[in-house]
Amino acid sequence: MLRSDYEGQVCSIARSLEVIGERWSILVLREVFTGHRRFSEMQRSLGIARNVLANRLDRLVDEGILERRCYCERPVRHEYFLTEKGLDLWPVMVALLHWGDKHLPFPDGPPMILVHKGECGGEVNDRRICERCGEHLGPRDARAVEGPGMRAAREALTAA
Amino acid sequence: MLRSDYEGQVCSIARSLEVIGERWSILVLREVFTGHRRFSEMQRSLGIARNVLANRLDRLVDEGILERRCYCERPVRHEYFLTEKGLDLWPVMVALLHWGDKHLPFPDGPPMILVHKGECGGEVNDRRICERCGEHLGPRDARAVEGPGMRAAREALTAA
Repeated sequence: MLRSDYEGQVCSIARSLEVIGERWSILVLREVFTGHRRFSEMQRSLGIARNVLANRLDRLVDEGILERRCYCERPVRHEYFLTEKGLDLWPVMVALLHWGDKHLPFPDGPPMILVHKGECGGEVNDRRICERCGEHLGPRDARAVEGPGMRAAREALTAA
Repeated sequence: MLRSDYEGQVCSIARSLEVIGERWSILVLREVFTGHRRFSEMQRSLGIARNVLANRLDRLVDEGILERRCYCERPVRHEYFLTEKGLDLWPVMVALLHWGDKHLPFPDGPPMILVHKGECGGEVNDRRICERCGEHLGPRDARAVEGPGMRAAREALTAA
């Protein structure tokens, strides 16, 4: 049985948090949003215990947010894809990203920038509207590119 | 010292979650966003232990998200207000609200609906744009009104 964190709350925010509010869940989703679909990739990127990652993936699959697809039979290996329900969490990710960029900034700038896919390449603003062409974007219209904060962090790691 | 949940993550989403990702923190913020400013009001609405609520309020004040103001000297009593940093979390609240309304719906409809303040009264969509007049809204331009899901829950409680 799943633990109910917010029993008695007649509130859609509370319901959402029941499903994605556990430690690591949102960062696991970030991985899939940025194209890390395999357990080993996620584990490396997140640096968490394998059992915690496995638990979070199971839960997100059970909730219909991720879909597990087999890409290798022997040994059995899976990739994870966002369902429509999962893709609809994009606004939550964008909101958390922009708030962090603004209020908890990295010294060298944002580690990740969302841009309009294809020729436009404009930045995605906090309403998920392209700053260049004004298009209202969905998760399939955008991609994440490395920002100056990530480059600086990688260089610091290499230098150390 | 504060626990770091996501050490080593060069990521603004992770940074945001370090600050607001603890159990109850977002629902405490929901309380203040909907005008419940006093400890006793929040405690009644959330039904959580007093020490947990006090801890979350302290943390949100320390992080510059809430501001504590005295409204009574004897005994000393405080009200909590959102700072600009706190108000900037509105997009996170709206995103969680809309996702829950869509994917984890209450049988009688949404418990809470955000509407454009004043004469317009249009519904606030998931990009925080007024569905009626098209205005791009901030947290001060909207208010929460009771939806059918909340009315039904209250009637069920009264009948029981």
